[in-house]
Parts: sequence; structure tokens; C-alpha cells
Amino acid sequence: MGEFDLIARIRARCLPRPDVLLGIGDDAALLHVPSNCALCVSVDTLIAGVHFPRDTAAYSVGWKALAVNLSDMAAMGAKPMWATLALTLPEPDYAWLDGFLDGFFALAQAEAVALVGGDTTRGPLSITVTIHGLVAAAKALRRDAARVGDVIAVSGTLGDAAAGLRIDQFSASGGDHAYLRSRLDCPTPRVALGQFLAGRARAAVDISDGLLADLQHVLSASGLGADIEVDALPSSEALREAVVNPHDRTQLQCSGGDDYELLFTLSIEAWQEVCAEAERQAWQVTVIGRVSADTGLRLWQDGKQKALPDTAGWNHFGDSS
Amino acid sequence: MGEFDLIARIRARCLPRPDVLLGIGDDAALLHVPSNCALCVSVDTLIAGVHFPRDTAAYSVGWKALAVNLSDMAAMGAKPMWATLALTLPEPDYAWLDGFLDGFFALAQAEAVALVGGDTTRGPLSITVTIHGLVAAAKALRRDAARVGDVIAVSGTLGDAAAGLRIDQFSASGGDHAYLRSRLDCPTPRVALGQFLAGRARAAVDISDGLLADLQHVLSASGLGADIEVDALPSSEALREAVVNPHDRTQLQCSGGDDYELLFTLSIEAWQEVCAEAERQAWQVTVIGRVSADTGLRLWQDGKQKALPDTAGWNHFGDSS
Repeated sequence: MGEFDLIARIRARCLPRPDVLLGIGDDAALLHVPSNCALCVSVDTLIAGVHFPRDTAAYSVGWKALAVNLSDMAAMGAKPMWATLALTLPEPDYAWLDGFLDGFFALAQAEAVALVGGDTTRGPLSITVTIHGLVAAAKALRRDAARVGDVIAVSGTLGDAAAGLRIDQFSASGGDHAYLRSRLDCPTPRVALGQFLAGRARAAVDISDGLLADLQHVLSASGLGADIEVDALPSSEALREAVVNPHDRTQLQCSGGDDYELLFTLSIEAWQEVCAEAERQAWQVTVIGRVSADTGLRLWQDGKQKALPDTAGWNHFGDSS
Repeated sequence: MGEFDLIARIRARCLPRPDVLLGIGDDAALLHVPSNCALCVSVDTLIAGVHFPRDTAAYSVGWKALAVNLSDMAAMGAKPMWATLALTLPEPDYAWLDGFLDGFFALAQAEAVALVGGDTTRGPLSITVTIHGLVAAAKALRRDAARVGDVIAVSGTLGDAAAGLRIDQFSASGGDHAYLRSRLDCPTPRVALGQFLAGRARAAVDISDGLLADLQHVLSASGLGADIEVDALPSSEALREAVVNPHDRTQLQCSGGDDYELLFTLSIEAWQEVCAEAERQAWQVTVIGRVSADTGLRLWQDGKQKALPDTAGWNHFGDSS
């Protein structure tokens, strides 16, 4: 499989679109950016054995490579538009590549994202996706925009992906292990919710490093603190059944990475709007705490303050798991 | 060195700019794209041992990672604006990182490119830069726009980087080996020339895979052929002195990768404009042939047709050197 065969194989999956003036096949893509929007750009790399287990199916690697980037767009309130894909493969493997592209394009088509460029190289498996979205600059969800008294809310459930990664520890327990693993392998970026929050919520971040670590990013950027109710943290039935020890469960929900849920802060009035839309759209959203003028992050349970879990997040240089 | 220290170290080098509404430190950057321009996007990955020798200085790796992307902007006629950097490092090494950033930012500042986002991960050394530029869509230099009778020209000199890579083969000869190696390690993207060519030249490509391979991309996209004069291929004094065998030299000039010069086609009238500006700017530009309606690529020397060199380019899946 030569580099140009590989590019042709990828290019064959790309559909023409009016905002893509020039797609894959030239030195660069040419894209039309509407004049009333800011361009929103983010990049994420996935490395085998660091960001996904080495036994992850090719489909899931392709899905996740795009999903983690779409999650960044969601956290900004942006509409994702265009992606580039830099794919480093150890050896030519059509079956793996086709599986990877199946996963990547399944999500790309679901979210109407066009692949507009890329690079293919030979080396240890690594995928870097750069995503481009659009958002009105004044409505973008920034980390530094939380205010005292804001409600803190999250989408979906927490801790599933972290339990899916460590499922061997919990294999004696019940619960839907396949579901937990799917939350690790094929996370759902909350793109529509993010766009609804733009201009309504104040601050937002996606939960990739773990709830507390990512909340801390918002608090540090905003110069504020927070109080979080442990019993309010949303958990899936699969998590409750697989991880019966409440301490372990809280640990996974607070510090487990790879949730790719949204954490956002907003006024009570905006929260009511979000709840009404969430009901219409069947989005799960949950209040977990409040922003406070007292800096620092405090966990509460049964009216008592709890110690913070040991590891405050997922740091790719501090934790090579 | 944690991931967040690393990001802080990179972020400290980024200067504020009015077109960067939000830079490094949030889930994504926010950028202002002027309404009269198309957004031009390209991505390139460099892998140690594939795209640069493992003994390459950190400074050169940083420079080259940006240079190869700027070269793509030049080949489109675009003004480079914003870059993202996905950096995968095997282990924390401040000295290496600082050297890398010195090289990256030396070129970024020279070309007024802002670093607006990135990702740092642990793994085998690999660098993926995504570059964003601006060009009026109608003036962009596309590969498919060559016309019969167009002059074919190149910037700079050819074959230096390929000789620099294989300098051991030529070490008995004279020539400035350090110069040849610097052409491999720290190529000069022809950004100003590319912008001048926008709206003047017809087709353009940057020479990364080798002259003939990249010319073939233009010819295939345009459905045309070309006749090239071997003796017209521009060579540096260092190349002529280091590689005394004319056959070897032609091989390097035709098929050696990593030149990062521009190859462009244009009318005689446009060529005269380019020559006048080149004299003012001290750009080296050379006519090497003509676009023909006869498909295929023909080399000529002393009025006789020559066989094409064996390897028609640098294919990262076909050639792991």
C-alpha cells in the first residue's frame, strides 16, 4: 500500500460540499468561513497504549479520534465543520484502515463534518485530528467566564469510561461491561448540547482529564472556587452495578478520564432554559454544584466536606497508563 | 515535566494578536477570518527517522516542522496566519524542548505566524503541525490549473537537501557539506514568492517529494504533459562541488525530496512580471521547461530525450529511508 493509494482510499470517502472550495488532493484545502462567525480550531493526538488500549478495534480508534475533537467544539459551543487527519501507521493494513475509516466517517457523517485534508506517514500508530468549527465570537463558551453563584452542571453520566478501562478490576461484579467499554471506545461528543449552550451558559469545558481536573481548569481561569455534591454526580446503571463500592465509584466519577461529557456553568435562568430544551431533546443534564467566590474546590456528602480523591486527573506526562 | 508545565512553557512564547480572539489555554482557539479571504488549511507530520535523520538538532526539527507547512501555504499563494502544534515526545526533556521551540518560533516570528493551539502527548517522537492561511479564493494556486504552453519554473536550487541526506556518499568530494545539510534541516519556505504568484501563476506545488513526482501531480491534475530541460535545473555551487558525477546530480535534482522549493506554471507575460519582482526581491527563479498537450513527462538534454530517473519520488510508505 503506497502513500498515494492510501490517500486515494481516504479521498474516495469524502463528499463534495459548497463550503469546501477545494478538498483533499492539493497542497492545502480552501474553505469558506461565513463573515459572522469566528473560526474555532482544536487539535488532539491519540497514541496507541496511551489514549486507547492497544486492543481497541480499528472502528473505535477512528470514531474516538474524531469524537475527542468534536468534544472540544462542543465545549466551545461551536458547530464543527471541517477536519484534517494526520495518520501514522506502522505498516500497510487495508483491513485496519477500512475499519478505522468506517468509524471516523460514521461520526463525521452523523455530525456533518467534512474531511478536507491530511497526511499519511509510516511510524508507530498515532492519529492527530485538527477540527475546525464556527461560533459567533460573543457566544463562545470560554473557561474563564464562570461567575459566583453559577450553577455547575454536567451532561450524561460520569465514570463509565474509566470503569471500562479498568473492567478487569470489577469483573466479579455485575453490570453491562460492554456498555462501559463502549463509553471508553466510542464516546459521544455533546455537539448539539454545546451549540445550544452557546450564548446561554457562561463557562464550559469537556471532561477529558476527569471531572475535578477539568472543573479546576474553569475555576483557575475564572479565579473562583466551587462546591460539589458527591451524591449528585450522575452515574449509569452499568457503573452502579459494576462498581458496588461507593468510594471506588466516586473516585472514577471524580478523577476518571475520557468521559467527554460537558461541564458548564450558568445562571439559574439559563439552567431552566437548558432543562426545557433537554427534555425536548432527551439530553441528560444534571446540576452537581455551585460556583463560589471562595477559591478551591470542595466536595460535600451528607452535609459534610469530603477529602478530594488522590489523583486529580489524567496527565499524559505524569501517568503513562 | 508534566503536560501542563509543557503547555505553559509553550504558551509563554505566544504573543497576543488582534486576529487571535482566544489562543492557547481553552478547549479551542478562536480566530478572526476576514470576509474576503478563503481559509487555507494543511497538515504535515514529521516522524523521527522518516522525515528527518535521528541525529537532527532539536532547533532544526522545530524549524522544519513549521517550514514544511509554510511551504504548503506558499504553494497555494496563501498568507500563513495560525498554526497548531501536536507534539509527541518520548520523555520529558527541557533542553530538547527549548531547542525545538527556539527553531519553531524563529520561523514563526519571521513569517508572523501565531501558534494558537496544540496537544502534547507521550510517545515516539512525532510532530504534526496544522497551518492556516488566507488567500482570495480566485487567486489560489491550484494543481489543476496548468495550461498548454505555460512556462514551468522553480524557485531556488534543486537537490541540495537530498545531497545533504546522503552526504556520506559524497564525503570524498568538495563542496560545502554544512550548507547542504542546512538545506535538509532548515529549508526556507518560499512564502513571499508564493503570495506574489497568487493571481499571476496558474498552477503551483511545493517540491517535497522530488521535482518529477511533484510536477507529475500538477500534470495529472491538469490532464497535461511537460518537457523539461535537464541542463536548466538550477543547482547550487555546493551541490556541483559535492556531487561531481552529472548523472548523480541530475538524479538528486529530479528525484530527491525535501527541497521545499516552489514549482509553478504561468504565461510568458506573467513570467516577465515575476522576473522583474524577483530581481527587486533577490529571489532566484528559473525556467526549466514547458507544459505540453502531450501527456507524460519528458526530459531533454542536448536536444535528445533522456530516460527518466528510476525513483520518481519520495513515498513514505514505499521508502522508509
